Amino acid sequence: MKLANYLSGKWQDGAGDGQWLLDPVTGEKLVSVSADGLDLGAALAFARTQGSAGLQALSYGQRAELLGKLVDVLMANRAAYADISLRNSGATEGDVAFDVDGAIFTLKYFAKAGKALGDGKFLVDGGRIPLAKDNLFAGQHLMVPLSGVAIFINAFNFPAWGLWEKAAPALLSGVPVLIKPATPTAWLTQRMVADVVAAGILPEGALSVVCGSARDLLDHVEEGDVVSFTGSADTARTIRTHPAVVRGGVRINVEADSVNSAILGTDAQPGSAEFDLLVKEVVREMTVKTGQKCTAIRRVFAPAAVARPLAEAIAARLAKMTVGNPRNGEVRVGPVVSKSQQQAALDGLAKLASASEIVFGGQEGFVPVDADAAAACFVKPTLLFCDKGLAAKYVHDVEVFGPVATVLPYADVDDVIAMARRGKGSLVASVFSGDAVFCQKLIPAIADMHGRIMVVDAAVGGNHTGHGNVMPSCMHGGPGRAGGGEELGGLRALGLYHRRLAVQAAPGRLDALSEGGVSAAALNA
Amino acid sequence: MKLANYLSGKWQDGAGDGQWLLDPVTGEKLVSVSADGLDLGAALAFARTQGSAGLQALSYGQRAELLGKLVDVLMANRAAYADISLRNSGATEGDVAFDVDGAIFTLKYFAKAGKALGDGKFLVDGGRIPLAKDNLFAGQHLMVPLSGVAIFINAFNFPAWGLWEKAAPALLSGVPVLIKPATPTAWLTQRMVADVVAAGILPEGALSVVCGSARDLLDHVEEGDVVSFTGSADTARTIRTHPAVVRGGVRINVEADSVNSAILGTDAQPGSAEFDLLVKEVVREMTVKTGQKCTAIRRVFAPAAVARPLAEAIAARLAKMTVGNPRNGEVRVGPVVSKSQQQAALDGLAKLASASEIVFGGQEGFVPVDADAAAACFVKPTLLFCDKGLAAKYVHDVEVFGPVATVLPYADVDDVIAMARRGKGSLVASVFSGDAVFCQKLIPAIADMHGRIMVVDAAVGGNHTGHGNVMPSCMHGGPGRAGGGEELGGLRALGLYHRRLAVQAAPGRLDALSEGGVSAAALNA
Repeated sequence: MKLANYLSGKWQDGAGDGQWLLDPVTGEKLVSVSADGLDLGAALAFARTQGSAGLQALSYGQRAELLGKLVDVLMANRAAYADISLRNSGATEGDVAFDVDGAIFTLKYFAKAGKALGDGKFLVDGGRIPLAKDNLFAGQHLMVPLSGVAIFINAFNFPAWGLWEKAAPALLSGVPVLIKPATPTAWLTQRMVADVVAAGILPEGALSVVCGSARDLLDHVEEGDVVSFTGSADTARTIRTHPAVVRGGVRINVEADSVNSAILGTDAQPGSAEFDLLVKEVVREMTVKTGQKCTAIRRVFAPAAVARPLAEAIAARLAKMTVGNPRNGEVRVGPVVSKSQQQAALDGLAKLASASEIVFGGQEGFVPVDADAAAACFVKPTLLFCDKGLAAKYVHDVEVFGPVATVLPYADVDDVIAMARRGKGSLVASVFSGDAVFCQKLIPAIADMHGRIMVVDAAVGGNHTGHGNVMPSCMHGGPGRAGGGEELGGLRALGLYHRRLAVQAAPGRLDALSEGGVSAAALNA
Repeated sequence: MKLANYLSGKWQDGAGDGQWLLDPVTGEKLVSVSADGLDLGAALAFARTQGSAGLQALSYGQRAELLGKLVDVLMANRAAYADISLRNSGATEGDVAFDVDGAIFTLKYFAKAGKALGDGKFLVDGGRIPLAKDNLFAGQHLMVPLSGVAIFINAFNFPAWGLWEKAAPALLSGVPVLIKPATPTAWLTQRMVADVVAAGILPEGALSVVCGSARDLLDHVEEGDVVSFTGSADTARTIRTHPAVVRGGVRINVEADSVNSAILGTDAQPGSAEFDLLVKEVVREMTVKTGQKCTAIRRVFAPAAVARPLAEAIAARLAKMTVGNPRNGEVRVGPVVSKSQQQAALDGLAKLASASEIVFGGQEGFVPVDADAAAACFVKPTLLFCDKGLAAKYVHDVEVFGPVATVLPYADVDDVIAMARRGKGSLVASVFSGDAVFCQKLIPAIADMHGRIMVVDAAVGGNHTGHGNVMPSCMHGGPGRAGGGEELGGLRALGLYHRRLAVQAAPGRLDALSEGGVSAAALNA
């Protein structure tokens, strides 16, 4: 079966045989994709006219209702999504929950949060600004929805959540979406779009999907469009420097790779609540989605005296995680998504191992359960230990996108601050400590280099939301090498899809122009 | 005299003879600049450590006080600035006021507005976000000052304002500044920095200046820095695609060229208040700073029936504006800034003239007052008329950076909407109309393509702040070809120099981490 592309309000087949999507456990060919011969420029133009008009005729509140209906459609088809996730991504039931239920949860969040914007069709930003005596002339900032298309170029690891965490705020803003999912796992994204299109919920042109190569897509972007990219730094560079992007001053949001940190406080001894919570979290981060999360823990920092016991405790817990075919009920960790991802992970692991010691795992002699290791794309969860600190090679730079993490001892709080910052901008750091002095010194010193910082202590216990789990109410994105983007964070996410302007006029004219607007203060509430 | 560069806390001479800055009226050599042989990487590192630490040890309120002291220094030296402006930019007294007094006004604004942030050292963005039952775990967004340097690569037309409109919010945010002024007019910028350095107001490393070529400056940028650029689309492309910028995810703010619109309403007849106000404003925009403002009116749209009388009225008023050596008291319009700018303006004018009719001006036979036309850099104010509408060649694309504008008749409101949008993103549009129906149809339809829209009617009269005049309280910057940046807009401007993050922790920990913060709501008040 070749997946069709939904562009210009029509299902369209790309030319040729296309590229096969494979089962990463069996190597079986599942479906193929092709974008060859499609008119992507026309698809963007259709979205800009039909999609934009249809969505922007509605209020925020009405669009929030549409999001609620999308939730119903996705929930009704969850079994199909689980099946596709299993076959195309080798997802365990836990992995399905993370991606598919995460998507639905995020859509639900915006369906509810968007109601607060009610009948508004644009945002009124701040108060009236006096510009002349006797109130004859004044200023007012407004934020209006972009007139172009929100183009999502997405990563393979979240075919469901990656679409909807971006589409929810875009659609709520009144901006049509064109999604280009990563080819290896495009099936689930395409299927979700197909279900939504079939349900007839969104205005024509509001949601398009193209599977396979992006081809000349970016040649057709223009002012008013926004490109939101999740993936590698290399592709980010291609997008940022694309002539049409640069020429059109097209807004870009990037979420790239990141060597995230988990930090055990100086107070935490083996057996303490914080120690045990960190062990559990590291193993969860290494194994959920087989470590294929941009937010996953890559570096685990611990006081020098407890770093070894910590590594041993993580290793002991990892040993219990059965790796193999997720169709087997014993299996907790599935494959990575493709042979090329497997190779990339093993290459990265080899680099790390050249400058660190393998404490647990390593690919040698590894036999996955119920799978042919040669045909399948497994990487054995592997923990490394590196005592070379700030000067260590690779570990602060190389992100192995799989079930791999490294424990690094630190000397004191200044040392761990320097190492966390050495990530040169990360999506997330988590701190496991009940020591107020440690937290108050560490966290402000790394705040500007992280998009999110999670702090766990005994009182929080198991109630935290997870190091790698992105909550729709909290910002996602990090500075520097993490791409510098911002997603989610509640209604803040709508900012990417609006353009701010200042209007200067007589107060009566400003009143008239502000009519139908709703306070932008809701975005940062 | 060769201007010294202030880098790494020391005045440093560049190597060699350097490049001469000239008097655009007489061609006289004034001063030279050179950045050759300077260690720009070390200068950035010094600013990141010394400058950042010095500024961030202070609160917003304390830094606002420093801005107030800068105002005093600049006011005390205004006569010197006027002299340099006259000699290096050929500025009239009005031009000096626009640049120098505009700079002081903007600094004063931030000195006052910054007080509202009081003792705060970072911003607390929005309220507490529930993340678990029983309030055991919650989220909080913070905005913290960037840890890097604010690098300004500036345009030649605002050596004073261009520095301080950017430096005021950066310094107020606690972020050190390195300014690279455009070479032809670097003298005034360098002199202002010298005066501020001599006054010893700012912490060491908080303000640096490099004159001449930027050389390898961008090779040394890294995560946490921000580059704010004003100038041509070509240079913007070079900056945006620079490897170190892309690799470091370095934040970029661009304000590039723009073919701004002034629009006369369908209601305005010759002799009406709106008609007369527009005539006056077009002439002001063409002549202040000899039209060398990124915000200047380039396209004047008028209902077909009144477009000719409008062009004639503008021409009649232009005829009264004496052009020549600003040392002559009769002169209202000075030269453009350099021979190369003169040539670029004349080339652009030739393009426009090839598809439009010259109503007034043109370079042929033009003799500036008290100046040798061959040595000097004059462009005669020139008004064109183009009745080819949306399909017209050049006029919607070519920005002539000088005293040049084109009147374009429009058929109806849809026609003028299409033409204003055809600018593909502009800094500003002004609307001269008392017709509520016209305004309510036009303005929302062009809002997303403009950074600022000014509306003038009879009631506003002469109380408006000016089409091309950037108020510190109102956002400056436009979408699309205008660069997509945002500057000013009151304390909103601080956003560029802060990084947002989400913190997730027990409420008590969030309380402790929020201590010393001030509400970010002040930014969008």
